[in-house]
Amino acid sequence: MRQSKLFTKARREGPKDETSKNAELLMRGGYIDKVTAGVYNYLPLGLRVLKKIEGIVREEMENIGSVELLMPTLHPKELWETTGRFATEESIYKTKDGSDREYVLGPTHEEVVVPLVSHFVDSYKDLPISVFQFQNKFRMELRAKSGLLRGREFPMKDCYSFHTSEEDLDRYYELAALSYSRIYERVGLGDITYKTFAAGGSFSKYSHEYQTLTSAGEDVIFVCDKCKVAVNKEIRAEQQYCPVCGGENSREEKAIEVGNIFKLGTRFTAPFKFEVKSSEGTMIPVVMGCYGIGITRLMGTIVEVKNDEKGIIWPENIAPFRVHIIMLRGDGVSEYANILEKKLEAIGVDVLVDDRDVSAGQKFAESDLLGIPHRVVISEKTLSAKCYEYKQRTKDTSELVSEEDLLKKFSASN
Amino acid sequence: MRQSKLFTKARREGPKDETSKNAELLMRGGYIDKVTAGVYNYLPLGLRVLKKIEGIVREEMENIGSVELLMPTLHPKELWETTGRFATEESIYKTKDGSDREYVLGPTHEEVVVPLVSHFVDSYKDLPISVFQFQNKFRMELRAKSGLLRGREFPMKDCYSFHTSEEDLDRYYELAALSYSRIYERVGLGDITYKTFAAGGSFSKYSHEYQTLTSAGEDVIFVCDKCKVAVNKEIRAEQQYCPVCGGENSREEKAIEVGNIFKLGTRFTAPFKFEVKSSEGTMIPVVMGCYGIGITRLMGTIVEVKNDEKGIIWPENIAPFRVHIIMLRGDGVSEYANILEKKLEAIGVDVLVDDRDVSAGQKFAESDLLGIPHRVVISEKTLSAKCYEYKQRTKDTSELVSEEDLLKKFSASN
Repeated sequence: MRQSKLFTKARREGPKDETSKNAELLMRGGYIDKVTAGVYNYLPLGLRVLKKIEGIVREEMENIGSVELLMPTLHPKELWETTGRFATEESIYKTKDGSDREYVLGPTHEEVVVPLVSHFVDSYKDLPISVFQFQNKFRMELRAKSGLLRGREFPMKDCYSFHTSEEDLDRYYELAALSYSRIYERVGLGDITYKTFAAGGSFSKYSHEYQTLTSAGEDVIFVCDKCKVAVNKEIRAEQQYCPVCGGENSREEKAIEVGNIFKLGTRFTAPFKFEVKSSEGTMIPVVMGCYGIGITRLMGTIVEVKNDEKGIIWPENIAPFRVHIIMLRGDGVSEYANILEKKLEAIGVDVLVDDRDVSAGQKFAESDLLGIPHRVVISEKTLSAKCYEYKQRTKDTSELVSEEDLLKKFSASN
Repeated sequence: MRQSKLFTKARREGPKDETSKNAELLMRGGYIDKVTAGVYNYLPLGLRVLKKIEGIVREEMENIGSVELLMPTLHPKELWETTGRFATEESIYKTKDGSDREYVLGPTHEEVVVPLVSHFVDSYKDLPISVFQFQNKFRMELRAKSGLLRGREFPMKDCYSFHTSEEDLDRYYELAALSYSRIYERVGLGDITYKTFAAGGSFSKYSHEYQTLTSAGEDVIFVCDKCKVAVNKEIRAEQQYCPVCGGENSREEKAIEVGNIFKLGTRFTAPFKFEVKSSEGTMIPVVMGCYGIGITRLMGTIVEVKNDEKGIIWPENIAPFRVHIIMLRGDGVSEYANILEKKLEAIGVDVLVDDRDVSAGQKFAESDLLGIPHRVVISEKTLSAKCYEYKQRTKDTSELVSEEDLLKKFSASN
């Protein structure tokens, strides 16, 4: 893609009304634009990052046999009355139409997915079922001051599984936990994201949060370095020791929750009377698990922990583009940029080409701000030396490489 | 994909509370599920159709230089007050948060896109700009009784373009019109979709709707067969003749609007004081066009016009899968189905395999209901004849074909 075709521009100054690092860098880089607190536009570069995160999450959900669908965000009030949450949930947005029909703007989708799945389930043979979606969620955050970390409207991956027994739910829950570990690994947060024991509600002793260490986090967790798990502060009083090895998990850290998995049991299936016929012909309750990841919160967290004084440092798999070609003024530069762009795209590497008529200094500074992993400079100097100037975003120095060696770097990593 | 992995089931009976053909067939086929009037779940098969339509629309938007982004659905009241629409629009959903901040649930996105684009535009050199998105829209339809044709919440492609002159807007508007024609052609509605002259508002004489002929449509248009354009009933009184050839456009038809393009002029840029510096250094107004396509309405319209007494007949480009492999009981069937599925996928053809343990009669009936364009039956009989039984959904008879000939049908059409 040509940078001149992006209508966005990088900015030297951060926004005055945003104090979080992620909002500052993402707004300066032209990834997002603020509509109001907790409500953002995702600009072309930002949307590309979102779609890459979505792609990874989708693959991992499909790997554990979940099927994608799409539920609406307008939920009839009656569904939320059935579970009792219409009256008790405080932070939900509501709306009504001309005939005074009331709706909840879904903060989560249990009230829709349970009746939906129950329509297609007659007997134990139809289970287990796991479904997931990417859909906007609405949460009435009182203080939405952390950029993408706390949104009032944000896209979320939510997955729901349905089972005939607690044992089968347990089995799937462990699969989901493994899937979540792979997701955080692939988006570049594997080393600082902890499976964290949290309160489990009435159905199971624990639920699990996935917590990424960052000083921007509003949660406190206690880490066991031996087991690479943690305990949430909320259950610390009753859980002094590591639930896995029994050792002391005493390292206290600030963290942000980037996902959670939860055994819901019959909390939502019972109110909808979702039962199935067992192999013995009796009616048995359906038990349920839910598995969520806020896609934009994950994006904000990555920026929060992957940056330096110059800008963002995107992990390879979710960068908006993998290679940033910088054209400097000079004869033949445009032609060679075209050729290299096409050769990289031919081996599956997406490329942003800075073809703008601005100074070299501005191009370099903005390239660092955007944080694309690999930078290739093309100038009259590099052309006369028959090579390219290559630099990784994480490195301080560049090297001159031949086209062959440059292409090799990407064929190897594919 | 294996049909046994879909949690949905086809149904013999249509829903009792839906009278429209599209809702009946889509619900019977397990494409959609109704939450409440005008609000649907898109099930795995339905989501695949949506994504294929989106893919075609995205390509055509990118072909005319539009850049994809994503705007939120929660619009602060103040933006709608700026354009005066907060008070005058009757069919918009509103909501408020705990601090009594009010929001509109976007029925369209002019109030968000104008301030957004203006943030990045300093001078005439930054224009033209065209942006588009796929985002949920909310419309307070009083009678939402036409299945996907009238949704209260539905995904829409909306595109907005910004220009320094009416001439440049006119130029882009014609590009958009060509792009729309290609879209309707590619989704299979080209022959029955008419560019229709409609009221233009205060800025231009006409806007244009794209109207697809169907008895389920609620609009009336007057068609000129010579020019393949039409006139909307609303402007018929003042436009008795074809606006293109001047002939009589007397064929009256019922139709449904599947898209529209509209020159907005300064209707939305003026209230936001969106002006740019001209090449002479003076400030000039920015003029604007908008271009919409309701993705699910388009899906519903296709079903409305592409069906027979047995079920849906999807056009090739937007079918959830291109090939439906039906496994009948017998030795070796499963193995051959696997091999054929892999060979088809290797040449880019997506395949649904009916691997369920149900009767052949049920499989055939449901295959016709689902409406996948190409059906391949594998049975002991076909295996002993070393061939497959192939049938197009649009044909009454099947033929026995060799694997080589079968694969050729798809390599040729790619």
